[in-house]
Parts: sequence; structure tokens; C-alpha cells
Amino acid sequence: MTFTTIVIGDELLIGQVADTNSGFFARHLAPYGWQARQVITVADNARQIEQALNQALEQTPVVLITGGLGPTKDDITKNTLCHFFGGTLRHDPETEANVRAIVAGRGLKLNEYTLSQAMVPTSCRVIQNRCGTAPIMWFERDGKVVVSMPGVPYEAETMFTAEVLPRLIRHFHRDMAIAFRHCVVVGIIESALAMRLDEFERNLPEHIHLAYLPQPGWIKLRLTGNHPDATALDAEMTHLNDVLHDLLGDLIVADNDLTLSAVVGEILRRRNLTLATAESCTGGNIAREITRIAGSSDYFIGSVVSYNRRVKESVLGVPAEIIDRENVVSEPVARLMAEGVAKYLNTDCAVATTGVAGPSGGTPDIPVGTVWIAARVGNRTITQCRHIPGHRERVIARATNDALLLLLNLLTHNDS
Amino acid sequence: MTFTTIVIGDELLIGQVADTNSGFFARHLAPYGWQARQVITVADNARQIEQALNQALEQTPVVLITGGLGPTKDDITKNTLCHFFGGTLRHDPETEANVRAIVAGRGLKLNEYTLSQAMVPTSCRVIQNRCGTAPIMWFERDGKVVVSMPGVPYEAETMFTAEVLPRLIRHFHRDMAIAFRHCVVVGIIESALAMRLDEFERNLPEHIHLAYLPQPGWIKLRLTGNHPDATALDAEMTHLNDVLHDLLGDLIVADNDLTLSAVVGEILRRRNLTLATAESCTGGNIAREITRIAGSSDYFIGSVVSYNRRVKESVLGVPAEIIDRENVVSEPVARLMAEGVAKYLNTDCAVATTGVAGPSGGTPDIPVGTVWIAARVGNRTITQCRHIPGHRERVIARATNDALLLLLNLLTHNDS
Repeated sequence: MTFTTIVIGDELLIGQVADTNSGFFARHLAPYGWQARQVITVADNARQIEQALNQALEQTPVVLITGGLGPTKDDITKNTLCHFFGGTLRHDPETEANVRAIVAGRGLKLNEYTLSQAMVPTSCRVIQNRCGTAPIMWFERDGKVVVSMPGVPYEAETMFTAEVLPRLIRHFHRDMAIAFRHCVVVGIIESALAMRLDEFERNLPEHIHLAYLPQPGWIKLRLTGNHPDATALDAEMTHLNDVLHDLLGDLIVADNDLTLSAVVGEILRRRNLTLATAESCTGGNIAREITRIAGSSDYFIGSVVSYNRRVKESVLGVPAEIIDRENVVSEPVARLMAEGVAKYLNTDCAVATTGVAGPSGGTPDIPVGTVWIAARVGNRTITQCRHIPGHRERVIARATNDALLLLLNLLTHNDS
Repeated sequence: MTFTTIVIGDELLIGQVADTNSGFFARHLAPYGWQARQVITVADNARQIEQALNQALEQTPVVLITGGLGPTKDDITKNTLCHFFGGTLRHDPETEANVRAIVAGRGLKLNEYTLSQAMVPTSCRVIQNRCGTAPIMWFERDGKVVVSMPGVPYEAETMFTAEVLPRLIRHFHRDMAIAFRHCVVVGIIESALAMRLDEFERNLPEHIHLAYLPQPGWIKLRLTGNHPDATALDAEMTHLNDVLHDLLGDLIVADNDLTLSAVVGEILRRRNLTLATAESCTGGNIAREITRIAGSSDYFIGSVVSYNRRVKESVLGVPAEIIDRENVVSEPVARLMAEGVAKYLNTDCAVATTGVAGPSGGTPDIPVGTVWIAARVGNRTITQCRHIPGHRERVIARATNDALLLLLNLLTHNDS
């Protein structure tokens, strides 16, 4: 199955915000074998919306629309869709009730713009938006489906997952059950993993498929199965997942579809361990990645961002003479930062970074992009030096990823 | 002038990475009066690229292409462009020299895939890419311009700013000088600002335009002027900028085109002040925003992320009985966190946050989205309570913005 996403909004075209909804839809439809054919981003403009819609319907059986539904957008998208699919606007009491509830819940007063959200095209089925005032509209024509959703990522993501995705799957895969198994693999490169799984993959039945989703330094594996008999499929998937675990042993560090910081978090939670970070060049970004995960307060104690050298000395206890002798960007300083923060915040585990994020501050010996990383679990600290090409933002992002990865490796392969 | 951006790459369509280049181009062309007409995202597929190109050239005189040029992409984009514009591929010695220099600079070995970057269409002018191996290709046909750039944001942003943007402006605004003045305004809402500048705006000459660029809680103003006489224009713009400053007084807190954390940073640097943050619900995100700015080590000392209650007590010195009595999410705790970190890290200024980012942890009295913020400059601390709707990521982002804004207000309107 293929689909096109149309992203509507002046704010996207002028670069005020970046579209993340189209990627979200694609990631969540991919496991079902659905492929995004194109993303078209247009302004809040009737002619452009209609043109994009015509083009999208020519090329794919499903069109997902996001944005253009705010009460200040003069209802351009809604009127355009109403005109496109025929019929008129009608007042929908259920939508009005939802709009009133949402507005009241936010402690706001209802105005006529917001109330106009209760007018919906007669040609669509309405799905109530429990996160916002703009209703979701489901249109069908000649076996094709067009779904219009709000643009606010929180609303689009929540409602797509809860309502739109299940309906799309039911609509297009009526008599087929679909099942997944995910796992996260570290400590092996993709080509070596593929060799190890070569026979397993070749022996998979035709209705079950293994996908490699490589990330920087780790790999997510996904088994997808399609079968009319849901019970039989589930048993088969569970069996194959067990075989996969037997083949990969402790290379598998998590059984879910998680981000890196969530994988680390799950392990910490399971083993009842606590974590702190000591950050120089990453400037708080590791703590931020960890605390993006809901429930991270169960294992994350806190962080010392020691941007200034004197914080490394006075708070983390790195001796001044070691900084002078070894350089502030060095193996001993990273190691002592990790040990210092674990001691200071009294945690079982710690990660630390010290590096040159750039664009200035580099030297011939320690060029921009050099980052020393340390990870500590219990009494064991390991370190790693990374040379990361690219600009400041990329150095920070990659150093954050690699610090979490080093901790993950230490947590899962402690004896290696 | 209008333009279309074509974004090429399977990794974008599957949602592995989000496109930020099209927004970057739009933001940097907008000051010259250029408008993005559409963004089309397609796979690494010759037919789709050609179809997007035809469509783009029908609708706008300029087409910017980003992505699809990596050495592992089988040269699909390059071959498609070569076929589209006619001619053949030729070996370009200058590009080969650049490829060799880039590869050597990264300490890598040259392979034949990378070397194939030196083959370029005879129909284009080549612009050397000093950040990567893929050359930038400039095509012209019937007065229209198509520019193909790499997809890696670091390369695309650097080369667009340094080479492509100036050439586009020279090409399409041959005999016209363009000048800008920016300023950042806080402490007034947009409608009140517009009333205050009503007469100023009405009296502007036709070749000078004032733009409002509203941000959450602050406003950027941009004066743009076009005139054949660059010297006269510059004098006129300077005069109008002075008038604007007279009209707005100390509502203007910065004279450049900066982000919020950079505005704060400029003021701290100018006044020789140092800053620390104490973060609970923002989890390090404020420190991250501050340290994204190159040179922030001049004023940013560090941060204590006190995610766990005991860090608030032991490190920041918030008394346990106050947390027990007032709640951890409360005015006194935010205030004591800011005072504590300023004392502990010995800084002139501080910001602090404590709140409920969600999705769990809310109570009827303190629902999810409640954040107490404190800002401290010298001996003065001010606080603010915010109720932020939306999901966890949004609460963190908005609390970060509002904490920086509270500090900015205190720094600039200390007596109010």
C-alpha cells in the first residue's frame, strides 16, 4: 500500500516550524508494509491544496493531510475539501460538544471562530479529536481514502495512533491480522549481524519478514507477520522471536521498539540502578535525552553541567593539576568527571563528556569534534575518544548518542 | 520571486530524519522577498525526481534541490539531472581535487564510489562543496535556475549561505542593493507594538518594508530595503533604525537576528555577567539551549539538573521542610533553587524550573503542565507560574522558552 502526505501551513513553508508529522505517519505505517510515495508541503491556499490533492490521488490510494485546520486559518482547508468532495457544510452537535469540552478544559472562553469547528462537510465521516478543537475528517471516493488531521504534532500524533491508523488498517487489510516483534541489538555491526541471521532469514515463511533498522552504533530488528489467523500468527511470531533470541543471545539488550535513552532507562529500571551525568561539551543534552522519557525520574537522579573548568574542580573534584597536565579534553578528566558525579550525587552509574564542540577552541592536537566520553557502572569506568566531523550541533548530538551507547555497552557486556 | 524546494531521500520519506533544509532556505530567502511555493519530498527514484522537477519548473522560476547526492545513492539524482538538462557526464579535475582534500581531511581512504563525485553533468556550472564530497550543481534553462545541493544539513546550510544565496541574489536582483536591520523586542504584545509603530510604518518609503516576526513571548522586527544606490540605502536604513530605537526605547533588547538564548547570551557578555541553571522538569534543556550558542562558555558556568528531590536538598540547599510544606512544584522551591545554584556555582544570574512535565504525576491542585520558573540577577529573584497544555515534549520546550524569557525580562527591565 502506498500513501501521500500533504502538509498544509504557511508556517511550514516559511520555515518557522519543521514538519515532523509526515515522518511520524511513515514510521508508524511502515511496519504494515505501507510506503510513503511523496510529501507535498503547501501554503494555506485553496488552489494549492486542491492541486496537491489531485496530484496525490492520482498517485496513491491513500492521502493523509495534516495542518491547515486552525480556527484562524479561515477554514480554507475545510472549505476546499468540502468543495472537492461535494456537498455542503453541516453543523455537527457531537463536534460542538467536543469543542466546548476542550475549550472548557483549557480554562478558555469559547469564541465564534472556535465554534466554527463544529461545521463539517456532509461528505465526510467525523472522528472526534480528543486533544483539540479541529475534528478529523475521513473522506472516501472510488476506493481511495483521504484523511484530514490537525497540524499540531501532539494532536496529530495522538489521534493518528489512536484512531486513524487502526481504521486505515481495518479498511485496507480487512481479513488479515498483523503482528510485530521488536528487539534492540548492540555490539555488532549490521553486516556481521546479517551474516549471523542469514539462515534464519532464508527460512522465514513468506508471510513473515525481518527488517533491519540501523541506528548510529546500534540496530533495531523488527519481525512483521501477516496472516488471516491471528492466534496461529501470534504463536508463530513468539516462536520465531525465541529462535532469534537464541541466535543472538546477549547481543539483544531490549525487547521493545524504543529509543536509545529509553533502552538505557529500561535496563536501569529493571536492575534497580540510578544514573547521573556530568557534561561539558554536551551542555545538558544527555540529561535532556534521558528526561524526555516519561518515568525517567525512577532512575535518573540528576546532572552537573560543568561548562566552566572551575565546576569540574570544585563540584566534580577533578584536581586542577590533572586538568593542567592532561588538558581539559582528555581521558583522565572524562574518567574523573564520571567518578566525581557518581560519588557526588550518590548514583550507581554515570556518564561524562568533555570535548570541543566548535566552531572555535580546536588545536592541532585536539581539533574541533574531539570528545572524550566516560561511562561508569558500579566501580568500573570505561572511556572512549571520538572524533566527530561536522558543525557544533552535530558534535553535541553525536557525542550524546555515543555516551548513551557506551553506558549501554557497559551495562550489558560488563564482563567483556 | 518564488521558488520550490525538492527534498530527495528515502530516509526522509520513511521518517528516519526530518527535513530542515527547506525551512532553512525559506528563512534565509524571505528577507529578500522570496516566497517558497511548495516543498516536494520524493524518494531516490529517477522517475519521481524528474516528475517533481517538471512540476516545480512549471510553477516557479527557481528550484532548490537538496539530498540524493551521497556516494551510495548510485548517482540517481545526478544522472537524472544530467538526462533532464541534456549533455553527458564529464570528469572535473577541480572537483576531484576537492574530493581528495575532503577525504584526506577526514583521515579516510578514497574509494571509487567517492571518486565518482568528480563526474559532473556538462550542462551545469559546478560550485565546489568545501564541507563534503558532493559538488553543488547550478543549471539554467529558459531563464529558470535549478540548484542541486547535498542533503546533510551541515553541508547544505553552510554552502547555501556562503555560495548559493549570494549567487541567487546577484542573478535575480542584478542592479539592486538589499539591506536589513533587525531588532528584538520584549515586554509588549504584537498588537500593542503594531499600534505604537503605526505612523512609522505608514511613513516608510515604498522601497523599505517592516516585518513582524512574532515568537512565543517576544517579537523580532526586520526592516528590509531595496534600492539601486547601496550607499544611499545604507544611510536611509541607519536613519530609520535610529527612529525605531527612539520610538521603542528599552523595549529593544538586541540589534541582531538572534535566537532567544543568543539574545540572553549577548546581554550577559556585554554586561560581563555569568549564568547558571537549576533544572528539574526541563531536565537540562535550558542548559542545552544556552550551550548551543558558540562562545557560550564566556558567560555560562554550568547547571545542576536536580531531577531527584534529594539533589534539590543536598546540592541546591532547598530545605526539606519547605519541599514538604509547599510541594516540590511551588514558588518557594523554584526561588530557592535559583538562589541555591547562583550561590553554589558562584554566578551573577540564574534560572530555575520545577514542574510536572507529564504524562503522569499531576494532581488536581498541580496538574500536568504546571511549571514554576525563577530568574535571578544580582540579589533580585522573580518567579512565575505557567500552565502549559500539551504533551511532555511541549511542556519541556515551552518551559525552557519561558525561563529564558523571564531572565531576559529581568535583565532588561530590572526596575519595572
